[in-house]
Amino acid sequence: MSITTTPTAAATTARTGRVPALSARIGAVRSSVIRDLLALTERPQVISFAGGLPAPELFDLEGARASFDAVLRAGGRRSLQYSTTEGDRRLRAGIAQRYTARGLATEADDILVTTGSQQGLSLLSTVLVDPGDVVLVESPSYLAALQCFALAGARLVAVPSDERGIDTDALAALAERLRPKLLYVVPTFQNPTGRSLSAQNRRAVAAAAEQHGFRVLEDDPYTELRYSGEPLPTIASLAAPGQVVSTGSFSKILAPGLRLGWVRSDPALRAGLVVAKQAADLHTSTVDQAAAAHYLEAGRLDAAIARSRGAYRLRRDALMAGLASALPPGSTWNAPDGGMFVWASLPHGWDTTRLLAVALQHDVAFVPGASFFPSDPPPNAMRLSFTTYEPDRILEGTDRLAAAVAAAAG
Amino acid sequence: MSITTTPTAAATTARTGRVPALSARIGAVRSSVIRDLLALTERPQVISFAGGLPAPELFDLEGARASFDAVLRAGGRRSLQYSTTEGDRRLRAGIAQRYTARGLATEADDILVTTGSQQGLSLLSTVLVDPGDVVLVESPSYLAALQCFALAGARLVAVPSDERGIDTDALAALAERLRPKLLYVVPTFQNPTGRSLSAQNRRAVAAAAEQHGFRVLEDDPYTELRYSGEPLPTIASLAAPGQVVSTGSFSKILAPGLRLGWVRSDPALRAGLVVAKQAADLHTSTVDQAAAAHYLEAGRLDAAIARSRGAYRLRRDALMAGLASALPPGSTWNAPDGGMFVWASLPHGWDTTRLLAVALQHDVAFVPGASFFPSDPPPNAMRLSFTTYEPDRILEGTDRLAAAVAAAAG
Repeated sequence: MSITTTPTAAATTARTGRVPALSARIGAVRSSVIRDLLALTERPQVISFAGGLPAPELFDLEGARASFDAVLRAGGRRSLQYSTTEGDRRLRAGIAQRYTARGLATEADDILVTTGSQQGLSLLSTVLVDPGDVVLVESPSYLAALQCFALAGARLVAVPSDERGIDTDALAALAERLRPKLLYVVPTFQNPTGRSLSAQNRRAVAAAAEQHGFRVLEDDPYTELRYSGEPLPTIASLAAPGQVVSTGSFSKILAPGLRLGWVRSDPALRAGLVVAKQAADLHTSTVDQAAAAHYLEAGRLDAAIARSRGAYRLRRDALMAGLASALPPGSTWNAPDGGMFVWASLPHGWDTTRLLAVALQHDVAFVPGASFFPSDPPPNAMRLSFTTYEPDRILEGTDRLAAAVAAAAG
Repeated sequence: MSITTTPTAAATTARTGRVPALSARIGAVRSSVIRDLLALTERPQVISFAGGLPAPELFDLEGARASFDAVLRAGGRRSLQYSTTEGDRRLRAGIAQRYTARGLATEADDILVTTGSQQGLSLLSTVLVDPGDVVLVESPSYLAALQCFALAGARLVAVPSDERGIDTDALAALAERLRPKLLYVVPTFQNPTGRSLSAQNRRAVAAAAEQHGFRVLEDDPYTELRYSGEPLPTIASLAAPGQVVSTGSFSKILAPGLRLGWVRSDPALRAGLVVAKQAADLHTSTVDQAAAAHYLEAGRLDAAIARSRGAYRLRRDALMAGLASALPPGSTWNAPDGGMFVWASLPHGWDTTRLLAVALQHDVAFVPGASFFPSDPPPNAMRLSFTTYEPDRILEGTDRLAAAVAAAAG
């Protein structure tokens, strides 16, 4: 191999532009630790409990292909054209029907389709948060939501949480003192803890919001992935109209690659969200929305969710069984009724970030819990996802974790 | 029909949430006048020169369906899964190849895939603009870009433009005085004017950016839709590396409904854009990206663009012919070498917003030029799009416009 350098190329690369620094707010926001970590755990031999990926073998590939084919045949040119910012009317109607069936009366007009529920969080940050506004968040919480609030200039304040979820007494006291604009909460099978807020505590959150005049952002992507226990009411169904804005997603129940989520809100808020979405991406993929609407109307979604529920229940049980012999004595973890995550706390003295380095040597991975805290991260927690692998592989993973724990302890 | 009211429903609707006002910045940004207007011109009998829609009959529907089908067969589950924020590597390579073929050496790694080029503008606003920063813009300019800068808190300053595009002497003087962070420019077949900046003036823009230390955002969605004249060099190819950031889109050459665009930038800027995109929507639709990459690799895009060019050239010529007898004596308009738009100025005394009301009575529409000015809008300009209809229908539209002009003058 010979290396050739032309004078022109050398002259070009020698010049460097004079450009201003990036904005202050982008400098203040870290890249997602989880996403950076995922890159490290992508070696195929690693059994990774770190990601939050739905199991691809459970995707209804046949159904998705049939729906894309159908919408690109009948009226296909419309599926390739610009569309409305609010979203595909048939898809909005289908989303509304599912809310109504779950006890929260909803019309198609109440729904704005978003490019994943992540975009819902981003748009809500733009529309609701002025720099310096207080946003209350669970602790721990979903990191990518905190990034949106931080980009909007929010002052994030953690509300203490325990195994029952957010502490509603502490919430009321903080709201009284800080006059927050917003409370961000994942009430069902939370990311990262897998915890659910009880019906009683949902009522207390709704009451605090009404009393202290803040909005609740109820982010609820996992609620249809329930494996045990009884369904819980949405906070929105327990509060005055407009007090709660809800985000949801097809990522965990249909396919994340379509990037289809939604915001359920009152009309005044939605008008602001539409302006923000025009600036953000004009509208969400017309063809993906049309295919999802077709898929819903074909009646395939409930069967697909039932398949996921059945498979994930077994995977949760496998992780529960495996953790018992993998984690050091004195560790605690929860048994979630649904979702994708288990939250474990190791005894005092353990540092899960250091344990991860050892675990990667044993070809197993998880996310250190410190990543999920807006402030004062404890060193000894971890998040484990149980949806990616079949039960045998999960048990192989917990065996490797046991070996890593033994090596780290030794 | 009987109306039934249950006490529960009445009690629920009677309650109203206590919620904070929306953020100051969303209150400061208007909804897109063009999009609001489009709603009014959607009656099927209206011949609308107002929109900027590609012609759906020119979409390569067969090719698109074949590509979606192919990616949902081979490795289909991967096309439904989460993906990287940067975008599909094969699609990025395809985009880079097209830049390189046009004289701007580009690698796949230089490209970030975005959810339409609109998202590129939004991400760049987040990453480059701090509140109060000066952003220089053409006058008139693309309204939805101005919305992004306004949402980021920019101080928008108009650079005078004439039929040759931006006034580069005025640009240098303003840059000297105001120390802008950014210049936003659509150098080729601009929206709304259809104008192109000469090669000499592109060099002057690049030189001013280097001298005064601002970035140039070169938004270039129309450049492949050329019907006459010789291709012009990108500003990026005339400037030092990193001085110019470029946005592009498949919306005008493949299909807007896929919401696929890109940003070409230096690595430091791209790192910031990736963080901003994680917060904005995690990544762009996996399946749409895979289908577009398949479509590019199948070699169908150039043929599709050639078909659009041939058809749009005839439509441009039809509008040129029709305008000569439709607009009042003393009007002027340009003959664009490409793109989608013609810009017309009516004689002193005409108000095109009032003319639009008369035109809608004659079932024809355009966009009043005032919508596109960041400040000091002239009352007598209009934008006309020529891509939506076949030549006969365009001439019917200019006949109606002639009748509206006569009615308004009488």
